[in-house]
Amino acid sequence: MKKHNFSAGPCILPQEVLKKAANAVTNFNGIDLSLIEISHRSKEFVEVMEKARSLVKELLNLPEGYSVLFLQGGASLEFLMTPYNLLKVNGKAGYFDTGTWSSKAIKEAKTLGEVDVFASSKDKGYNYIPKNYNIPSDIDYVHCTSNNTIFGTQIKEFPKTDALLVCDMSSDIFSRELDFTQFDLVYAGAQKNMGPAGTTLVIVKDEILGKTGRSIPSMLDYQVHLSKDSMFNTPPVFAVYVSMLTLEWLKEQGGVKAIEKINQEKAALLYAEVDRNPLFIGFANKEDRSTMNVTFNLTNETHKDTFDKLWNEAGINGLKGHKSVGGYRASIYNAMPIESIKVLINVMQQFEKQVS
Amino acid sequence: MKKHNFSAGPCILPQEVLKKAANAVTNFNGIDLSLIEISHRSKEFVEVMEKARSLVKELLNLPEGYSVLFLQGGASLEFLMTPYNLLKVNGKAGYFDTGTWSSKAIKEAKTLGEVDVFASSKDKGYNYIPKNYNIPSDIDYVHCTSNNTIFGTQIKEFPKTDALLVCDMSSDIFSRELDFTQFDLVYAGAQKNMGPAGTTLVIVKDEILGKTGRSIPSMLDYQVHLSKDSMFNTPPVFAVYVSMLTLEWLKEQGGVKAIEKINQEKAALLYAEVDRNPLFIGFANKEDRSTMNVTFNLTNETHKDTFDKLWNEAGINGLKGHKSVGGYRASIYNAMPIESIKVLINVMQQFEKQVS
Repeated sequence: MKKHNFSAGPCILPQEVLKKAANAVTNFNGIDLSLIEISHRSKEFVEVMEKARSLVKELLNLPEGYSVLFLQGGASLEFLMTPYNLLKVNGKAGYFDTGTWSSKAIKEAKTLGEVDVFASSKDKGYNYIPKNYNIPSDIDYVHCTSNNTIFGTQIKEFPKTDALLVCDMSSDIFSRELDFTQFDLVYAGAQKNMGPAGTTLVIVKDEILGKTGRSIPSMLDYQVHLSKDSMFNTPPVFAVYVSMLTLEWLKEQGGVKAIEKINQEKAALLYAEVDRNPLFIGFANKEDRSTMNVTFNLTNETHKDTFDKLWNEAGINGLKGHKSVGGYRASIYNAMPIESIKVLINVMQQFEKQVS
Repeated sequence: MKKHNFSAGPCILPQEVLKKAANAVTNFNGIDLSLIEISHRSKEFVEVMEKARSLVKELLNLPEGYSVLFLQGGASLEFLMTPYNLLKVNGKAGYFDTGTWSSKAIKEAKTLGEVDVFASSKDKGYNYIPKNYNIPSDIDYVHCTSNNTIFGTQIKEFPKTDALLVCDMSSDIFSRELDFTQFDLVYAGAQKNMGPAGTTLVIVKDEILGKTGRSIPSMLDYQVHLSKDSMFNTPPVFAVYVSMLTLEWLKEQGGVKAIEKINQEKAALLYAEVDRNPLFIGFANKEDRSTMNVTFNLTNETHKDTFDKLWNEAGINGLKGHKSVGGYRASIYNAMPIESIKVLINVMQQFEKQVS
């Protein structure tokens, strides 16, 4: 039985991508060698890297002057690279705190300089996105997290600032159309909508780099990686290749505009059931709800075992909420078919019948 | 035709490892989910990580008090993590410079503090390993590179020091028996003897950490990664899994002792032909020759096209030397069968007949 995979990340990838990836591990493009045993400087792999980069530019409609990198270390290393590359010596950064990942980014920035957390939703356990905040004017950049995987909230309106705007889009990049001219630096761990764990996408406006007066270690310096086309050191070959396949798949689906429409339908369907079914209550503030991670709790915890048994029997995987929120989290990324969501909704309705 | 893959890295992996890895990408352990779409916190993946770590300890016969990590960023990020974790504020580090990778390590250490390069073979284009050097006594650690992939040299006798001893073993770990009690920190990019590109093995003596007086960003702090069992952030799932498979394969071959014997036979066979055949000359000083990377040049460059045609026709891949040395480099890692080396030797002998 094929599972219905609601895992938050690493997460579901398109079946055809998995098949192509498996084939490449035994014989890549018919060259009688595995993808993972050829040189990263071979013609074959250089083409993969170039195609992955160009698909990112095309799918996100990136303007001229932006470059694309595939690095390692996940968003966690970007939390450090951001201030290393953008925070001036004796400068200050503004952070928009919407959850666990924002908080971790703040912690790393503080190792390099002054940080002003100008808005936070910590007061209510991060169940909403702050509005009506004041962004300080004396900062080098604003950092925000577009989608909060753990809490199921998503920024719909990004901070407006004259400073540089940095966004961690790990869990919703490629899920909705955005005007990328508003961002100066965007990064995303691959393991949600883009590919397997092991590579990090970085999109950077070239002109913002090299202006901090700071000396930057090579591996943390975007300019070093840009000068070597993401090959300053050996790239994570498999993760980049599977990302390329996933981006090809997305293009075949009609690109970001088409997938956004489907994502909205999927999310609307599931939130409607969360709101309708008296046994569930949504965690996130309605207007800030994520289209990627649907978080909800039981209204009556005594029925927990009954519900858990039902979804396990239905072949559903990865529905357990993050330990800091509890309850349930249905992660419904790009590759999640609407059929799986219907299976979950069906289970929720069965559950209602069973305990009523 | 199966290729004879002499690529320097990413490089040849055992055929059965590639098959198992491909299967796991479609259906991992029969759980009806792909390895790359399950949570890294799932029971299934936690078992992979634990097994990979325990195989490292077993195969290298690591003493008590050493821990094993699987990180990201390759040796290049370790060049920075080493001084961050071991170089005291206002301290000094000693570096043993045996080639390109040592030099890169030196460059990163200099971003954090004082570096004393107490021995170097740069004077002769890195074709030998320095002997009879004096190690300064006022240093926090000594850093060396056990095998120089580009130049084909290998340290047989490691520096003796009262300071901590750090070794970059990226290209020869698991290829020979070593007394690991002499090292305090060892690291290695996976993409030679251990697995695909995308993860880095770190072996560290626990008691040496936390003693520099330096504040360390989370992702660069070995203690942070140790406290989370290599799961401080999402690990590179596929690369760790394939490393585990390769270590299982090595254990089935009889472990490091058995593979060392085979490696010595393979290297002896190929070096014998390089020395015998008047059309070739070895690059590295004989007593410092690597058992992993056999570097050689043509005695007469006018025959280059003839030789290149011959080995290409024989299905040999990745024989071209690194651009900084030129000539040829046969990388003969653990997974390289002796049959492929015989094919290369045969080509070298055919070449001799053809141009004589």
